[in-house]
Order: sequence, then C-alpha cells, then structure tokens
Amino acid sequence: NSSFNQKNHPHRRYNPLLDEWILVSPQRANRPWQGQTEKVTEEKLPAHDQNCYLCSGNVRVNGDKNPDYQGVFVFENDFGSLMKDDVEFSDEQSDFFTLKPERGINRVICFSENHSLTLPEMEVDDIKKVVDVWQQQYEDLGAEDYINHVQIFENKGSVMGCSNPHPHGQIWAQSSIPSTVLRTQENLKKYFEKNGSSLLEDYVKKELEAGERIILENEDFVALVPFWAIWPYETMIISKRKAENILQFSDSEKLSLASIIKDLTTKYDNLFEISFPYSAGIHQSPTDGKLHPEWHFHMHFYPPLLRNAEVKKFMVGYEMLAEPQRDITPEQSAEILKKLSLTHYKSQSY
Amino acid sequence: NSSFNQKNHPHRRYNPLLDEWILVSPQRANRPWQGQTEKVTEEKLPAHDQNCYLCSGNVRVNGDKNPDYQGVFVFENDFGSLMKDDVEFSDEQSDFFTLKPERGINRVICFSENHSLTLPEMEVDDIKKVVDVWQQQYEDLGAEDYINHVQIFENKGSVMGCSNPHPHGQIWAQSSIPSTVLRTQENLKKYFEKNGSSLLEDYVKKELEAGERIILENEDFVALVPFWAIWPYETMIISKRKAENILQFSDSEKLSLASIIKDLTTKYDNLFEISFPYSAGIHQSPTDGKLHPEWHFHMHFYPPLLRNAEVKKFMVGYEMLAEPQRDITPEQSAEILKKLSLTHYKSQSY
Ligand SMILES: O=P(O)(O)O[C@H]1O[C@H](CO)[C@@H](O)[C@H](O)[C@H]1O
Ligand SMILES: O=P(O)(O)O[C@H]1O[C@H](CO)[C@@H](O)[C@H](O)[C@H]1O
Repeated sequence: NSSFNQKNHPHRRYNPLLDEWILVSPQRANRPWQGQTEKVTEEKLPAHDQNCYLCSGNVRVNGDKNPDYQGVFVFENDFGSLMKDDVEFSDEQSDFFTLKPERGINRVICFSENHSLTLPEMEVDDIKKVVDVWQQQYEDLGAEDYINHVQIFENKGSVMGCSNPHPHGQIWAQSSIPSTVLRTQENLKKYFEKNGSSLLEDYVKKELEAGERIILENEDFVALVPFWAIWPYETMIISKRKAENILQFSDSEKLSLASIIKDLTTKYDNLFEISFPYSAGIHQSPTDGKLHPEWHFHMHFYPPLLRNAEVKKFMVGYEMLAEPQRDITPEQSAEILKKLSLTHYKSQSY
Repeated sequence: NSSFNQKNHPHRRYNPLLDEWILVSPQRANRPWQGQTEKVTEEKLPAHDQNCYLCSGNVRVNGDKNPDYQGVFVFENDFGSLMKDDVEFSDEQSDFFTLKPERGINRVICFSENHSLTLPEMEVDDIKKVVDVWQQQYEDLGAEDYINHVQIFENKGSVMGCSNPHPHGQIWAQSSIPSTVLRTQENLKKYFEKNGSSLLEDYVKKELEAGERIILENEDFVALVPFWAIWPYETMIISKRKAENILQFSDSEKLSLASIIKDLTTKYDNLFEISFPYSAGIHQSPTDGKLHPEWHFHMHFYPPLLRNAEVKKFMVGYEMLAEPQRDITPEQSAEILKKLSLTHYKSQSY
C-alpha cells in the first residue's frame, strides 16, 4: 500500500458552502483529447459598432434607442426571464405539480461605451464605476417590496452563451431566493449559529495562513482558488471583513474590489493569451428585509477552459448525474495563476 | 391584475427529487439568438473505422488490442478518473481542508461493433444486450467490497464532451455515494418514511392520470418530461413498478426497457433530424449492502439543444450561481416530442 498523495491519487473534497463533495482526479490530467474544441477568434473590435445593440446611440431590437452614454449604462432587458406583473394565483397545486408565479426585473449593465474593451482592459477607476452601479442597483432593486434577491452576474465569451462582446453584465432581481443561494445561506447560517463567526471569514484566515491557493490579496479582498473548486481555473473573491453585502462597502473598499477584479481578470487573459471566458457573479445577503449576520460578500468566477484556449472542461454525464469532477488540482491551478503577470498581454512589449 | 397562466407567466416549479426549485420563463422562448451555434456534421460513418480506438481489433492508446468483438464489449478505461489502489491515509484534515481518498473503477461499454450505429438505429434485441450488460456490470462491480455506487451513463455527441462517435457508454463505480445521488436518496427516503410508498411510483401514477407530459408508455416503463425538467427536452424513463435497481428486472422487463430507449432516442433524432446529443444515465440504489426500500429505478436524459440542431441552451451565469432556468415549458416540449414519429428519419421514405 502506498501512502496517499493528493497530487497523484483520486480523492474527494468537501465544499462547506454547498455541503457536498466533489471528485478530484489529478492522475487524469494528461489524457489525450480528441473531442470538440472551441473556436478562438481574436479580431480587433471597433470602439463603436453600429450593429451592436449595446453601443451608445444604437437602436435595440424592440425599437428603443440607447442614449449617447459614456461609462456605465443600465437598461431593462428586452427579453427578460422575469416580469413585474403581480398576477392572481390560487394555490391549487397537488403534491407533484407544485408551482408558483415569480415576479422580478432583469437588467443589463453596459460596463463602458467602448465596444472593444473588457474588464481587464478597463482602468481601475472605470471598473470602480461599475462597482458603484452594482451597489446602487442592489440598493434600488432591493428596496422594491417584491424583490427579495438581487443576482448580479456576467457571462463573458461566446462559449458562456454570451452573444455580444460589448462589455456588459446582468442583474436578475426576483421575489424568491434562488435554490443555490438558499443552499449557501443555510450552510452559512449553520456555521454562524454553531461558531458565532462567519464561515468565510474563518476560511479566508486559514487560506491566508496556508498561502498556496491565494492568487491575489489587497487591503480589503483576497482572490483564491477554493479548496473545493470544480472548474479548472475557478476562483473566488472574498472580502476580508465580513460585509454581508455590497451596500456596506466604503469608497475605498469599492476601489479595492475594482482593483482585484482587474488583476484577476488580467491574469485570466494572460493564461492562454485570449479574452478569457467565464461566468462570474456575486453572492451576498438577500434583500428580504431580514437580518443576515451569516452572510459574507463573495464573488465566484467559473471559467470553462481546461488545457488551452480551445479545450474546455465538459461538465456532462457523470457530473450532471453524480457529482462535479475535476482533473488538475486546485493547488496546481493556483500555482499557474499566481505566476502570471499583472500586465495584460495586449499591452506587453516583447 | 391578470390571472396566472403557466403558458405565459414566469414561475417556479418544485423538484421533489432534489428538493429545489427551478425558474420557468415561457414568455422568453422567442427571443432572438445571435450567440454561439453548434457545428452539425452528419457525415456517413463506416461500419468499421481503423482510426477508432473502440472498433473491433484496433489498438488503443495504451497499446492494448481490442478483441474482434461482436455486439457489446466492456473494457477498463485507459484514462480513468478513479483508481483501485487502496492507499494509506491518516485523517489529519482541518475544518476547511477536508478531503479523503476515493477508490473506484471506470469502464467503457461499446454498444455494438458497428461504428456507424447509435442506440436509436440499433435493433431492440441488440439494445437488450446492452441492458443485459448494464445489469451484469452493476452486479459484478457492486459485489466488490469497496464499491458502494455504480454510475452507468452515456455522453452522446461532441457537444456533450464525447470524443468518439462509436456507440458507447461508461460506468464509474466507486466507494462513495456521489453528491447528487445522495441528495436524491435523502429525498426518496423522506418521502418513503412519511408515506410508506415510493415517491416515483406515486409520481408516475399522477403523470399517467394527467397524461400531458407522457411521451411513451409500455407494459413496464413510462418515458415523460418531468414537471420540473430543466433542459428544454429533458426526459426520464421510470419503471412502473418500484424496482430498486436493475438487478430486479426480468428478461421481459429488460426487453421493455430496451424498447422504450429505442423509441425515445428515435423521437429525439427525429426532432431536428440529426443524431441528437444528450447525457443519459441511470439512478438506482447504491451497492452499499444496505436496504434501500426508498429507491426506484429511473434513467435521466439531459439533451442540451433548445431551438434547433445549432442552438443549445446555455446553463451559465444565473443558472450556475442562482438556479436552473428554462424557456419553453415542459408541457410544450412534451407536446412536440409526443407527435414525433417512431420511425427513424434515416429510414423514412419520402
Ligand atoms: O471520459 P470521457 O468520455 O473522455 O470524458 C467525458 O465524460 C466525463 C464523464 O462525464 C467528463 O468528466 C469529461 O469532462 C468528458 O469530457
Ligand atoms: O440573457 P442572455 O445573456 O442572452 O442569456 C444567457 O444568460 C442567461 C443567464 O445566465 C441564460 O439563461 C441563457 O441561457 C444564456 O444564453
């Protein structure tokens, strides 16, 4: 019997946020890949594209004309998944056919008027303006009586279902607390009730001590590869102090957040020297008017790529039916991400 | 205030198997799509491909030579995610860094020696031989002391991460019960303890009464679109009687299963007249030697396509962070699937 070595032996790791295990198969990283590859097109985009429905002054599908905005611009999604309407509903559902109407608001946030930019290519001050708008939107939407949860996120890259390269994110605000957020909340709550401290505050301390999974750190935030990450280059930005949500951040904290977002996404772009695709989003306390001492602001980054710009990790069969599975270990990914430059590859001179 | 109508209004539905809600946005089905599309290549494949590592008599990457098999052929995956080795492990993990070694066996099951076939194009008797092998494998692997769960599945199509069109599936057998299976088991158990009957047996009865989500039915099985389906054309095959696992099926039940698999996958292929991609797999009782009266054999089909052969549903941003979301309703999908022919489009004469 050889001795267990987490760099060579299949093992499972525990995710305390979701109270579930994941499978890690480090020995599998080198298997040959003959499957589907992603198209990588890095055309130079214009600063303004007259066919882009997000650019300043252009007309959208529904006939609305965008203002000649500079900086951040927010509008209601023309094809939202939610509606504001309060519909009449009589709860006559049987056991297995349980449903209920859901109200909400979908918004699109253009990060910049410049069609050709992405977050890592923007100035920190301009990213800070995006963070300001996230804060404002969380406040405004959360103030609505029927909005109990505000999900802020970004899908970046066509492989993540993003149909427009114009830098933008989304907000889906709704009456219910979504399933994954609720599960997270239950686990944060259990921990808080048991230990009297925030799960993520304690976790960040341990990670800072360990050091090996920390990618970036500034005064107010850390960016790390979670011990239980499932995507090959998954990361999390966590506030050092237990802020329950984005409302609690001061101006200088918002600047710190903007700065760590710029640095993390720059490293991502430098990894394969492409505009790195991901879905990212904020988890924070719901806007349901209740006290949430268990909550701790964090932002997840889920990038799909595995080996290079063309080969993604497929979360299919086993992962859909049984449990998430990864090949390279979180520590290996962290080591690679750590070493990458903070200067964007497009602005590096060789 | 208008009255709630589930064909037009956003709503959430409850999934009792996972104890979570999903978001349904029927009003969103017609939004324009300018995003990534999938390549559809329908080349005619040869019955034997000398470059295919799954074909009879060919040599695999690791140097092993496949026998000149006819019908079903099982071998150990050359790049498995699990290893049989029993490694020494001292449990010295701290709170947030919890891991443990995992043992297991990965196998590949070739469904036929004919490289050009897929399940819907095979004869029912030949699919029955695949079901026989699933049964045998579940028994043999489950008999191993350290194997407590046997996951049987198929990834079909390059969009589902499948790198070889040769008809084949996989088995990942392991020491632990995987996360999603465990969650399902907990919910089946709660129901069984409360009601003294199987959740899925009661559900199937209600669905047969309702009728609108039933796609296929034979003596022993039904195929339906679950009320809480998340993928646009997601379906489930459920045994009518509460069999805990595949071992309990008689020869004629296995033939019924083969037959409903053929019919369902034929309808799938006919939907867009392409070889329809999906991940499919069986959920059944674990092989942990315990009694599992709560379990009820079923098979999930998760197909990624939404509108046509090129446009898939992206489970990204909101779905990854918050909760699964679908556009067309399960009832609309069921209506479409119901109407499709049981004669495969390739063998239809016009
Ligand atoms: O083993 P395969 O078929 O090469 O790999 C495929 O299925 C596996 C099990 O669902 C996944 O982990 C892989 O990401 C996928 O590419
Ligand atoms: O609204 P979009 O960006 O067109 O749509 C994209 O993001 C949504 C939210 O994650 C998903 O539901 C869609 O499947 C995806 O294509």
